[in-house]
Amino acid sequence: MKDNYNKNDKKLSWKILESSSLYNARIFQLRSVLKQDAGGRKASFVSLDSPDWVTVIPETGEKDFLIVRQYRHGTENVSMEFPAGLIDPGETPRQAAARELLEETGYTADSLIQIGCVSPNPAFMTNYTYTFLAKGLSRVSEQNLDEHEILDVYKMPYKDVSESIGTGTFASAITVQAWYFYRKYSGDC
Amino acid sequence: MKDNYNKNDKKLSWKILESSSLYNARIFQLRSVLKQDAGGRKASFVSLDSPDWVTVIPETGEKDFLIVRQYRHGTENVSMEFPAGLIDPGETPRQAAARELLEETGYTADSLIQIGCVSPNPAFMTNYTYTFLAKGLSRVSEQNLDEHEILDVYKMPYKDVSESIGTGTFASAITVQAWYFYRKYSGDC
Repeated sequence: MKDNYNKNDKKLSWKILESSSLYNARIFQLRSVLKQDAGGRKASFVSLDSPDWVTVIPETGEKDFLIVRQYRHGTENVSMEFPAGLIDPGETPRQAAARELLEETGYTADSLIQIGCVSPNPAFMTNYTYTFLAKGLSRVSEQNLDEHEILDVYKMPYKDVSESIGTGTFASAITVQAWYFYRKYSGDC
Repeated sequence: MKDNYNKNDKKLSWKILESSSLYNARIFQLRSVLKQDAGGRKASFVSLDSPDWVTVIPETGEKDFLIVRQYRHGTENVSMEFPAGLIDPGETPRQAAARELLEETGYTADSLIQIGCVSPNPAFMTNYTYTFLAKGLSRVSEQNLDEHEILDVYKMPYKDVSESIGTGTFASAITVQAWYFYRKYSGDC
């Protein structure tokens, strides 16, 4: 037990010796990385490289939220989430947030405020996931989805989001952490 | 835009045709799954199979929290998180929570209350991550760590957790979503 949050990083850290690709998927690359710790011990660890991700919380003037409902190939069920996606090469997180919002819902936002940025899982994922709050929404087009994307879009009142998020099929950790940042930004968490 | 959260799952869903292993890592298996949607279209998707995970929020009688600080091989830095780990074969989530708490901190808990269960990422991960609140803590032993684990353990007051979680190196999405469940369970979020 330490008395304070000291920074004895050298004792904890590992140095990278070698890195090799294990598998290239469309949305990430799996790598094997040989590392050495402060005591000279060597070991290989698997890491998953992905582009950074972005989640958008679209809030209407009536404090309703746009929610997308789509089939997800990991959990193999239909999941409710805030609009989200990968940040494309050359895009800023904000540009990706605007693009994903438009593609998945057909809406643009007057303002996109970055309210959070965390690692999805520091244990084996190398990327970060940004959260933006989108305000001043206008419907400008139909959805414009990626290949293999089929999404339903809903307006959900604040009360319903607050009650149901983190339960049933509205239960992605990324959507839940985004909602925490929204609540914190709004001053009520 | 749909008026209500209807359950037109058939239109959204894909049927599994074939599944094959791409790579076996120690903590997960990468699989390729050939699927077919309601319109007859076929496509292959990569999914990552992992045992379910568990996160424990250890709260002392003084409303301090036990936090672990460790090097993480994904983000390649020293990360602050609540104690967490994989659920071993044959373990219940609660048993895994008790084991991880003891191994990482040397503490046992009088009560372990499940306060959340979500998918880490429904897009490509097949597993779920449980959150437990641990109360009635007693220090019973030294840490008993897995191979390659080196952790520092801290007590952090509620105010410090609340202010710093989701920022700097205290920024794992899994730790943030766990904290949301804690705040919700405590009635202040």
